[in-house]
Amino acid sequence: MKRYEQFAAEIAELIRSGVLAPNEKVPSVRTASRTYQLSPSTVFQAYYLLESRGLIQARPRSGYFVCAQANRALAEPGMSARTAESTPVDVSELVFSVLGSIKDPDTVPLGSAFPSPDLFPLARLARSMGKSLQQLPAKTILADITTGNAQLRRQIALRYRVNGVMHSPDELVITNGALEALNLCMQVVTKPGDLVAIETPTFYAALQILERLQLTAVEIPVHPRDGIHVQALEDSLQRLPIKACWLMSSFHNPLGASISDEKKQQLYELLYRYQVPLIEDDVYAELYFGKTPPKPVKHFDRAGLVMHCSSFSKQLAPGYRIGWVSAGRYAEQIHRLKLMTTISPSVPAQCALADYLQQGGYDRHLRKLRETLEYQQQIMLAAIARYFPANTRVTRPHGGYFLWVELPEQVDSLQLFSMALAQGISIAPGPIFSATRRYRHCIRLNYGYPWSDAMEGVMATLGKLISSLL
Amino acid sequence: MKRYEQFAAEIAELIRSGVLAPNEKVPSVRTASRTYQLSPSTVFQAYYLLESRGLIQARPRSGYFVCAQANRALAEPGMSARTAESTPVDVSELVFSVLGSIKDPDTVPLGSAFPSPDLFPLARLARSMGKSLQQLPAKTILADITTGNAQLRRQIALRYRVNGVMHSPDELVITNGALEALNLCMQVVTKPGDLVAIETPTFYAALQILERLQLTAVEIPVHPRDGIHVQALEDSLQRLPIKACWLMSSFHNPLGASISDEKKQQLYELLYRYQVPLIEDDVYAELYFGKTPPKPVKHFDRAGLVMHCSSFSKQLAPGYRIGWVSAGRYAEQIHRLKLMTTISPSVPAQCALADYLQQGGYDRHLRKLRETLEYQQQIMLAAIARYFPANTRVTRPHGGYFLWVELPEQVDSLQLFSMALAQGISIAPGPIFSATRRYRHCIRLNYGYPWSDAMEGVMATLGKLISSLL
Repeated sequence: MKRYEQFAAEIAELIRSGVLAPNEKVPSVRTASRTYQLSPSTVFQAYYLLESRGLIQARPRSGYFVCAQANRALAEPGMSARTAESTPVDVSELVFSVLGSIKDPDTVPLGSAFPSPDLFPLARLARSMGKSLQQLPAKTILADITTGNAQLRRQIALRYRVNGVMHSPDELVITNGALEALNLCMQVVTKPGDLVAIETPTFYAALQILERLQLTAVEIPVHPRDGIHVQALEDSLQRLPIKACWLMSSFHNPLGASISDEKKQQLYELLYRYQVPLIEDDVYAELYFGKTPPKPVKHFDRAGLVMHCSSFSKQLAPGYRIGWVSAGRYAEQIHRLKLMTTISPSVPAQCALADYLQQGGYDRHLRKLRETLEYQQQIMLAAIARYFPANTRVTRPHGGYFLWVELPEQVDSLQLFSMALAQGISIAPGPIFSATRRYRHCIRLNYGYPWSDAMEGVMATLGKLISSLL
Repeated sequence: MKRYEQFAAEIAELIRSGVLAPNEKVPSVRTASRTYQLSPSTVFQAYYLLESRGLIQARPRSGYFVCAQANRALAEPGMSARTAESTPVDVSELVFSVLGSIKDPDTVPLGSAFPSPDLFPLARLARSMGKSLQQLPAKTILADITTGNAQLRRQIALRYRVNGVMHSPDELVITNGALEALNLCMQVVTKPGDLVAIETPTFYAALQILERLQLTAVEIPVHPRDGIHVQALEDSLQRLPIKACWLMSSFHNPLGASISDEKKQQLYELLYRYQVPLIEDDVYAELYFGKTPPKPVKHFDRAGLVMHCSSFSKQLAPGYRIGWVSAGRYAEQIHRLKLMTTISPSVPAQCALADYLQQGGYDRHLRKLRETLEYQQQIMLAAIARYFPANTRVTRPHGGYFLWVELPEQVDSLQLFSMALAQGISIAPGPIFSATRRYRHCIRLNYGYPWSDAMEGVMATLGKLISSLL
């Protein structure tokens, strides 16, 4: 992110948070330039950008003012509703028919599960790959197939330690992305017919895992800010023989919700009391906008009951397919199951990541990525406020790259999906995030792609399509 | 392989096949040098090597002669016996306890499933990796996650075409090595409790798949030369509701057996008649010692009933974890199941292989690899004849890198495994290749590691350990 974009993001945040009210004058170029120690041209560029985004406007001979609608406060969605006690899952066909219909690679990927690959240090990773492969002893390749690359395991363990999670290196199993980790975890703690507590809405891949393994979902409500409803989970644990719990503790997909540290500990104690293993999907953990990384539930785990799954796919190396699980007491079973099914993720990819992590550019990259995503979130929120109906509700997550948008009740998001796709735009329709096909009027939007005038047009188009459905 | 080693291999073959009989004089250095257009020093080096291998010996003032025991013709094993009609599989614990006990990386890997990684063009692949990653558009990485790398798919399809198999590119699913392919195939055509026809002995990973998916094995006898007993398979198909058949059609692991083209067609017609899908594990197909590659059963498939699985792990790029299945009518289901479980193998690894295949060094590499393996087989057969008991039986496969050794009945291969491991040598004991824990007196030896004086000592040690068990 360039300096003027950073500055624009700061002003946007002041507007969003109401520090700069609608119709209020923004600092003059001279004042801003002095206060923020920026060149006047940088300030000009930033204001020009904010103007093109509809956040401020120039008034002749008076300077720039916050637009009347700039922080039009769209409401946030509330807690999701309770559902039937438990429900078999049959959503895969819908997920595939939705995702499989996005065939044109030039579709604007607002429905994508990944941020823009241009945000990642791919050239730097390629150099790490070249270097580490040239140095790799042939013998090590075969050894790494069974155990995972030792250097990579050490680097991952180090990051856990920095975040206050101590675990034995033996707990760590390197997998083909987080999705393989989640699949393996679920398989070792359940058998067909078992009940599994999940959030609603939830990541569709979790639903597909349940469906594939013939598990029955117990859907627990989630608040878009605070995450899973712990009391509702407790009620279900009391009444039902739940065998596992699957959830996203930070920057939940699709809601963006994050559980507070205090509530994470409560949650752990609750699961510990019932001895129900937790599969913690934490792939967005590094994409926090605050000052400190969120703690995982794994942080509170003293009995090896939490399987903490993550990967490098969403913040560093998409396509490398390297994930892992810190699997507590289930590590050995998971390791064996992996040896029986895929054996190992690519050894070269592991080596490249180990080398990159060792070189120390990772934290710098992450800081920049977080800044960019936070900025893009502001811009997209402003665009939604401008173009979507007034009674739209939208989340304001503190990390990740998804917004969850509740449209007016009449809007059918599957219909909207088809109409948008015909215009070259993908969105993620609500029903793919639910075992009971709820959230018909909701969509998930990805703000992980760089903003541009074209994107502005895309949001305007989406707004028009939504209006046409009212 | 150096020129003198090649020449030594030719002479070894003449001895093995009996063209040069025991006690017969081998061509003088001068004659050989003239006949084969080699320098005398090359011939000397070759003869010195053959002498150190115990195939020929110098007689003072008379030249070199074939040793009396040089081609001591050890018998070949016969057809494996029939077993119970069907049997649940419970072999995983044994497999893990055996393979998991090999912890020291310096163990001589006669029990390994891979040939020596030094036989692969790893530096060349590393260059392909560096080059292709530098050129890869960021956008392509995300696209390749869903569909597999287009260039790699094209290269694999081309090799099928060269081998006379025509299939639509849509039939091809790129997987995490062949093992993921086999797992996916088995999952889409069976449900728990189903009967599956497999060979006996068979690759332990196939047994583990059956165990994991709660399938019941119907073990079909295999001849060490000709492969599966088609009549026995037909008997089972007639009597039992078999839902799938899993086999290795060429250079079977562990037997080295290959089914003739004629029998492959019979086999296909038989399965077609019963509409039983075939999972054809063909990972050693490129390691043939003859002039032409063996045809897969897939060659005869006109109904999309054969799922042909292979990979680059055994002949080009171990650790890259790139395999595939040409899956006929099951392709779409397999593709979806993969998207739900691991999504995709590493995109960089796919790109590197695509680049390497396109550069055209693959066939040259394979020719050299085949020569080396064939040579090493001769040397190991000679060592077995020298050091193992006279009533040992051993296979003579026409490809791959495994020998299957039937030791005298009294020998317990699990005990031998432990004793050998204590001496720093691994072997693969027979019972891990059987759902019914048969083959107690058999072992599988890997001749995929370069021969050396140390290896000669290893074989002598094994021979002594075996004798001690008689």
